[in-house]
Amino acid sequence: MIKDLPPNTVERLSLYRRRLINYSDNKKQYIHSHQLAHLLRINPAHIRRDLMLIKFTGDVHKGYEISRLIKRIGEVIDGPKKRKIAFVGIGDLGRAVAEYFNSNDAKLEVSATFRLSEEPDVQFPDVHCFNISKMKEIIRKYKIELCVIAVPTSYAKEISRTVIESGVKGILNFTSVNLDVPESIYVEDYDMIAKLEKMSYFAYENE
Amino acid sequence: MIKDLPPNTVERLSLYRRRLINYSDNKKQYIHSHQLAHLLRINPAHIRRDLMLIKFTGDVHKGYEISRLIKRIGEVIDGPKKRKIAFVGIGDLGRAVAEYFNSNDAKLEVSATFRLSEEPDVQFPDVHCFNISKMKEIIRKYKIELCVIAVPTSYAKEISRTVIESGVKGILNFTSVNLDVPESIYVEDYDMIAKLEKMSYFAYENE
Repeated sequence: MIKDLPPNTVERLSLYRRRLINYSDNKKQYIHSHQLAHLLRINPAHIRRDLMLIKFTGDVHKGYEISRLIKRIGEVIDGPKKRKIAFVGIGDLGRAVAEYFNSNDAKLEVSATFRLSEEPDVQFPDVHCFNISKMKEIIRKYKIELCVIAVPTSYAKEISRTVIESGVKGILNFTSVNLDVPESIYVEDYDMIAKLEKMSYFAYENE
Repeated sequence: MIKDLPPNTVERLSLYRRRLINYSDNKKQYIHSHQLAHLLRINPAHIRRDLMLIKFTGDVHKGYEISRLIKRIGEVIDGPKKRKIAFVGIGDLGRAVAEYFNSNDAKLEVSATFRLSEEPDVQFPDVHCFNISKMKEIIRKYKIELCVIAVPTSYAKEISRTVIESGVKGILNFTSVNLDVPESIYVEDYDMIAKLEKMSYFAYENE
């Protein structure tokens, strides 16, 4: 790992890797920054800067060697061992994520999903779905360290407390509640209401 | 509306408004930027800059007048009329969002949810859930303009094409597929795999 990378760089490196894995399926060995930028609809300058930060250089003529870049991104952003994730209340939305991590040689694995008792039971292939009453027990037993919380607002605080007590180190928070967590816990918030209001603003900016 | 605001500013204005609505429930009339910053765990300099961009000034001693600021944010980011949203495949995650928009005097309204036929039927109060085969008909009938797409990867392209053909102007895309849309359509992507890999990186940066 390279420490202290900017958060947006880490996020983009993850995107680059997935796009490159798909791209290399087409038997290509090299890619230019502007080609990768086009595939991802981002600015090529971002790509060049991000790869400079991870000390990766390409060939002036051929571009970046894809297999080497995929490997390098792994060295930089993946942890030393496989980490386990739980989804709480996320329903069907996490299925593609679980399929990606669990069918690849990824350093993350979706190990359990939990549902609130009143919810219908959404099953992912190969991931067991538990009732939320078993959360503490299962998180400890499976040594789950990352958790995606997507429950109604009124449950958010209690569930975040429980998962942290059970050993979770990072929370992806889809509730619009500001979670009050110890400093050692990494929280990444996603506020869908704000995203929708932003989308409405920009979808109609030129009306 | 004020045009050409930075995307992050629009998103934060939405967050400020909701936090202020809650805060004013406590009978407070004024708030300082550092207090609002603390509630939202962001940098107070962001708040001051965002409010400068929307030409809102506070009282040096008392801070910002809450009711006036809530009103001002609405003038700036809300469109002239109510816009309708549909959720496709989002399951339970959108429920809090629907409750917020539909129970407030908001300029957005969640008007329909669609499910893939194999999914269990998640019902939100007061929002009708339709089978995806009716999508075109319902989007047109209800004049839905914004759409949240959270379906398995293999459905993403077809569904985005259908909603755009039916009149949708903005898509919040939870699939990890890069949607190929006309320039007039606003797409906001959310890639959960990249967020999880970033979270894993930062949750363990100091290991």
